[in-house]
Amino acid sequence: MTQVRDVAVAAKAAARVVAKVSAETRTRALHAIADAILAQEAQILAANEADLAAGAALAAAMRDRLKLDPKRVAGLAAAVREVAAAPDLIGRIEREETRPNGLAVARQRIPLGVVLMIYEARPNVTTDAAALCLKSGNACILRGGREAQESNRALLAAVQAGLRAVGLPAAAVQLVPTTDREAIAELVKLDELIDLCIPRGGEGLIRYVAEHARVPVIKHYKGVCHVYVHAAADLEMAARIVENAKVSRPGVCNAVETVLVDRAIAERFIPLLVAQLAGRVELRGDATVQALAPSARPATEDDWYAEYLDLVLAVRVVDDIAAAIAHIEQYGSSHTEAIITADPAAAERWVREVDSSTVMVNASTRFADGGELGLGAEIGISTTRLHAYGPMGAEGLTTLKFVVRGSGQVR
Amino acid sequence: MTQVRDVAVAAKAAARVVAKVSAETRTRALHAIADAILAQEAQILAANEADLAAGAALAAAMRDRLKLDPKRVAGLAAAVREVAAAPDLIGRIEREETRPNGLAVARQRIPLGVVLMIYEARPNVTTDAAALCLKSGNACILRGGREAQESNRALLAAVQAGLRAVGLPAAAVQLVPTTDREAIAELVKLDELIDLCIPRGGEGLIRYVAEHARVPVIKHYKGVCHVYVHAAADLEMAARIVENAKVSRPGVCNAVETVLVDRAIAERFIPLLVAQLAGRVELRGDATVQALAPSARPATEDDWYAEYLDLVLAVRVVDDIAAAIAHIEQYGSSHTEAIITADPAAAERWVREVDSSTVMVNASTRFADGGELGLGAEIGISTTRLHAYGPMGAEGLTTLKFVVRGSGQVR
Repeated sequence: MTQVRDVAVAAKAAARVVAKVSAETRTRALHAIADAILAQEAQILAANEADLAAGAALAAAMRDRLKLDPKRVAGLAAAVREVAAAPDLIGRIEREETRPNGLAVARQRIPLGVVLMIYEARPNVTTDAAALCLKSGNACILRGGREAQESNRALLAAVQAGLRAVGLPAAAVQLVPTTDREAIAELVKLDELIDLCIPRGGEGLIRYVAEHARVPVIKHYKGVCHVYVHAAADLEMAARIVENAKVSRPGVCNAVETVLVDRAIAERFIPLLVAQLAGRVELRGDATVQALAPSARPATEDDWYAEYLDLVLAVRVVDDIAAAIAHIEQYGSSHTEAIITADPAAAERWVREVDSSTVMVNASTRFADGGELGLGAEIGISTTRLHAYGPMGAEGLTTLKFVVRGSGQVR
Repeated sequence: MTQVRDVAVAAKAAARVVAKVSAETRTRALHAIADAILAQEAQILAANEADLAAGAALAAAMRDRLKLDPKRVAGLAAAVREVAAAPDLIGRIEREETRPNGLAVARQRIPLGVVLMIYEARPNVTTDAAALCLKSGNACILRGGREAQESNRALLAAVQAGLRAVGLPAAAVQLVPTTDREAIAELVKLDELIDLCIPRGGEGLIRYVAEHARVPVIKHYKGVCHVYVHAAADLEMAARIVENAKVSRPGVCNAVETVLVDRAIAERFIPLLVAQLAGRVELRGDATVQALAPSARPATEDDWYAEYLDLVLAVRVVDDIAAAIAHIEQYGSSHTEAIITADPAAAERWVREVDSSTVMVNASTRFADGGELGLGAEIGISTTRLHAYGPMGAEGLTTLKFVVRGSGQVR
């Protein structure tokens, strides 16, 4: 197991190098990585074939996430170049002030240091995370899933070739040499070598990391997103938004799981919703919902907590906005909650009182995504209330240090 | 032990109330707390007497930290009013942008939620932490040291009287009902109730917290601060700064522990330093230092890691700025490092390459303090590289949520 510690020691040394090189060098490294991904397409696809062959028994959805083809490989390279094209953050002076004693106090943006990404079977996370960490001046340690092991090794070879091409240490991006869970437990204890851990994947994996970590962990266990259809909602808009939030991609964390319907408009809205969903979604509702939507099955307490990740939707009638907010406080996951309303006062109350990481007015929860919200690429979504809360991009991988310039001041 | 969990459950409920009230209510609460501290002076001093009587065997420095008198009580109230007077942060829109699809995306400053402060014998932390947490819209759970138990109870009574006076829940500021270490271990696991833990005190206490925590912990284990006297330093200034950084208050974390002297000026500087310190400080040095300062004792490897918190200073001669930075990378604690130089290029290199939370040029390390750097009051110093890195005030107790306003957008 010292192997794992060696990885972290090498990452810390590499982090110091990456933090100090110019933005221009980091940008050149990202383009060199994109070039290497394209140049090594054949090896990457062969490795991916091996993973797919070994994972013949995997579920179809999992195999689809795992699978690479020339178009997807080109997409990985393009995503790295997109990260390269974003403005550089490191070294930026964010605040500056002169104190009464003449000390000039500034805060300067710096990398976090070493970031540990723990994820499952998506090989694109390997290159996305490497690119975002480099962009923000960090070293990273990647621990992907066993199912993508060969693909990740091949992608890592391309990443490291890119690093070497510009004279950066290959240890700036490393893959943990084993996919054992014990390796995770050991890594997340190394709080003097690793600055942040971002686990992505199923709730079981994330709870395992949280359980064992001494390193700060930024995570979200699940996304139980809500849409509340207010009494003053445009009901057609509400039905379209709920449909989009549920149907466009039911398996992702920003899909809606529970719709809260204001009692004042329930009789009009629920039939409209049923028509809009046109039988594609299984509804589970309380007694009022069942009366209005005969196809709905009864919802149990568990349904209010459920992240279905499927074409299933819980629907509950609530008395008013206060009851909707109370429902979210009890059952929500601090991810994303939308109100549909034409009443500005209701919208402002929603924004002020719902304390989820993303609160929305008259828009689909599916927009809770780093790209859609203008962060550029996304490294994860945080429901941990730290410097990153909600979708998290390159800036979430940085912090600020104090820079103090004086002329001999003593205290 | 369910007692401890009950405290956290009550804190979370109170946090929701405190987060939603107006800035004006929070300000009124702070003034009501200050008023109550003054009104209850007699009870506070009596409780403090009881602590001092029970702690007759404590070291003099500890007793001094623990002791309250009418002037100190007035100081506690004044500190609370100072926090009240600072600008309010909660609800502030920090960024706003309209996406190509018309979504208006803003980031709004919000409280973290529930903050757990773990500290030792200083009763002033009780009121300071309560005030900063309230100011930033958070609830807090305080776990002070056994030695200050009665003082903390009396101060808490005043704080809760102030909360009640403006109709806020008393559970917004609570004291853990026991000072057992086991209660800490239980509390820091409650990551669904507590958002952040800030331990302050000895390294043993902080390591204990880090060991058991599942809640994010912001901490610094120790402050091994450095002053590097560069070849181009004003040597008189350097000697004055080192003297101030060591002698003005040797027992605090921003006192200098190791001075790195550039070889080019060692022969001139070290005798100057010896004269400036005038025998008040025990020096421990390498061979070159000992040759130039005959009173210096030999330094061992342990001295480079040491946080003396005393009138002892390690002195090492280094070849150049690169060697000084390498020394800090190996032995430093990411707290505060100052360079003394008249060479702007050296100063810029220092600022860029030293990755401690506070880097200084031509000033005493003693300025690494929230008040001195303009944060208002300070709740702690972080060497954890998260949203707070370095001195941490009210803003370090907040984060940003995404607020998205649309007009029916779907994805």
